[in-house]
Amino acid sequence: MIRIGIYGYGNLGRGVEMAISQNDDMELVAVFTRRPPESVKINTKGARVLHIDDALNMKDEIDVMVICGGSATDLPVQTPFLAEHFNVIDSFDTHAKIPEHFENVNKSAIKGAHTAMISVGWDPGMFSLNRMYAGAILPNGKDYTFWGKGVSQGHSDAIRRIEGVADAKQYTIPVKEALDEVRSGSNPTLTTRQKHTRECFVVAKEGADLSYIENEIKTMPNYFADYDTTVHFISQEELNEKHAGIPHGGFVIRSGESASGNKHIIEYSLKLDSNPEFTASVIVAYARATYRMACEGTVGCKSVFDVPPAYLSPKSGEELRKELL
Amino acid sequence: MIRIGIYGYGNLGRGVEMAISQNDDMELVAVFTRRPPESVKINTKGARVLHIDDALNMKDEIDVMVICGGSATDLPVQTPFLAEHFNVIDSFDTHAKIPEHFENVNKSAIKGAHTAMISVGWDPGMFSLNRMYAGAILPNGKDYTFWGKGVSQGHSDAIRRIEGVADAKQYTIPVKEALDEVRSGSNPTLTTRQKHTRECFVVAKEGADLSYIENEIKTMPNYFADYDTTVHFISQEELNEKHAGIPHGGFVIRSGESASGNKHIIEYSLKLDSNPEFTASVIVAYARATYRMACEGTVGCKSVFDVPPAYLSPKSGEELRKELL
Repeated sequence: MIRIGIYGYGNLGRGVEMAISQNDDMELVAVFTRRPPESVKINTKGARVLHIDDALNMKDEIDVMVICGGSATDLPVQTPFLAEHFNVIDSFDTHAKIPEHFENVNKSAIKGAHTAMISVGWDPGMFSLNRMYAGAILPNGKDYTFWGKGVSQGHSDAIRRIEGVADAKQYTIPVKEALDEVRSGSNPTLTTRQKHTRECFVVAKEGADLSYIENEIKTMPNYFADYDTTVHFISQEELNEKHAGIPHGGFVIRSGESASGNKHIIEYSLKLDSNPEFTASVIVAYARATYRMACEGTVGCKSVFDVPPAYLSPKSGEELRKELL
Repeated sequence: MIRIGIYGYGNLGRGVEMAISQNDDMELVAVFTRRPPESVKINTKGARVLHIDDALNMKDEIDVMVICGGSATDLPVQTPFLAEHFNVIDSFDTHAKIPEHFENVNKSAIKGAHTAMISVGWDPGMFSLNRMYAGAILPNGKDYTFWGKGVSQGHSDAIRRIEGVADAKQYTIPVKEALDEVRSGSNPTLTTRQKHTRECFVVAKEGADLSYIENEIKTMPNYFADYDTTVHFISQEELNEKHAGIPHGGFVIRSGESASGNKHIIEYSLKLDSNPEFTASVIVAYARATYRMACEGTVGCKSVFDVPPAYLSPKSGEELRKELL
């Protein structure tokens, strides 16, 4: 049994707990939380809830620590800290800061002689892998990534910070015409506006100025100004009823040519009812790989690019070749 | 430079030659043929054409031998033979015989202390990888593979063997309704007939009995009897003009659930103008990986499941993390 610790018990941590329950070769040993442990209820019988300050006492009882903090402020501190003491895995997703995070985690992992796996999930993660595979196969080609339809937490938060907004949910939606154009193999150059639209469901506070809110959203730099954005004002009840989920997904497409001029399209897509639960499912498969690489003596920071696919599966090489090759 | 040899110069061998021309870190050293070498013209300046009997004399000048024979009778002999003397890669695609082929190649590769990579292409190959990744991520789920729209060489050949047939081309076509049902997440059980249809374009010899031919096709066991099959009789000119290509493609879909009951769909698809050219592109990327694994001292037979994705790319780990993660 691979003994797993979960460090941080929000949406992602709960997803990891669920995913462990679907994998017979893994067991959840403990959940570590910043909250008072007695206030946190988990679903796994026999697993403990401990304060994060007690994590280092559990060094010998945990094979892989799954770190479920946020990328903005938690992971840049937590992963380097924990990589010195545990084999670790995280879902660090601030793309621009991955090289820096990698260096920091790598130093700690080497110091502690552990295996550390960063930026695991679907983007970064499975989407990155598909960009990489497709680019290696079709060097003469072009990559396209579309996201959605799905809820963007960051954009929903940005709307909630506007004066007069009580609650909000934002969907990122790929533009069908753009997708079709890419799939045709014409290798179009697409602007931000041509690739995605944004749809916002907003609950206004009583007496709030709706046209002010709508204008604030539509003109918000970086978040909305470069997109065709639709704003719907709805009641809190309707938001709770129809927009409670956190679905997501997207498309990675590479359109390329062989030397004869023949065209080839490689497409990978995800349609997810729950973004954090799927991310957690990817992480748990890679936790298995992290454990195996650690058992082999691998030291330092790794990413999905470094992991032989077979390491993700509980099946033997023989079973994989017979059943799936 | 990675020095490549091509063993067998048919559609696949020519595709490998094209793919090498798109990769700056590789060079084609020699093509080996069963035909008189002087009768074979290749497109790469500086590369030699040699008889297959001269292959072993080139041991020290070739880093990876790409074996481009057929799976029925060539590869079961060629790959074990050559793996003793070279690092090799093949596209062995008789799924049921992969375990046996693996064992034979493994023994030879170990004897010669070489790296051998088998069953590389898109199915087996990229489709296998996607079945494996998706199954490891969503252990509670179901796999579906659809092929087409594309030309099946084996089925086209089978039609050509019928009395009165001068030429023929067969397309395998996935049934859209079945694809849509799978994508809905309903995990349907689908019969052979429900998943694919077969469309045949047949050139009859003068005076041939068309209804006899049509009946022979539609009732042919294994090949057509279990499918809804359409037969069109056309002229040789029309066949040459409209059906000269060898396009193919398909879909690998896994539909699964996380422990909460939330559904997730993972889909990988290919749309290929040329089946052999795309297969060759995959093989050449894996030839790079084979070379790297050989340089590290890897010995024995490997499959796509064993290869860290980064080994396929000419980019460094640092570049991959920065640009694609």
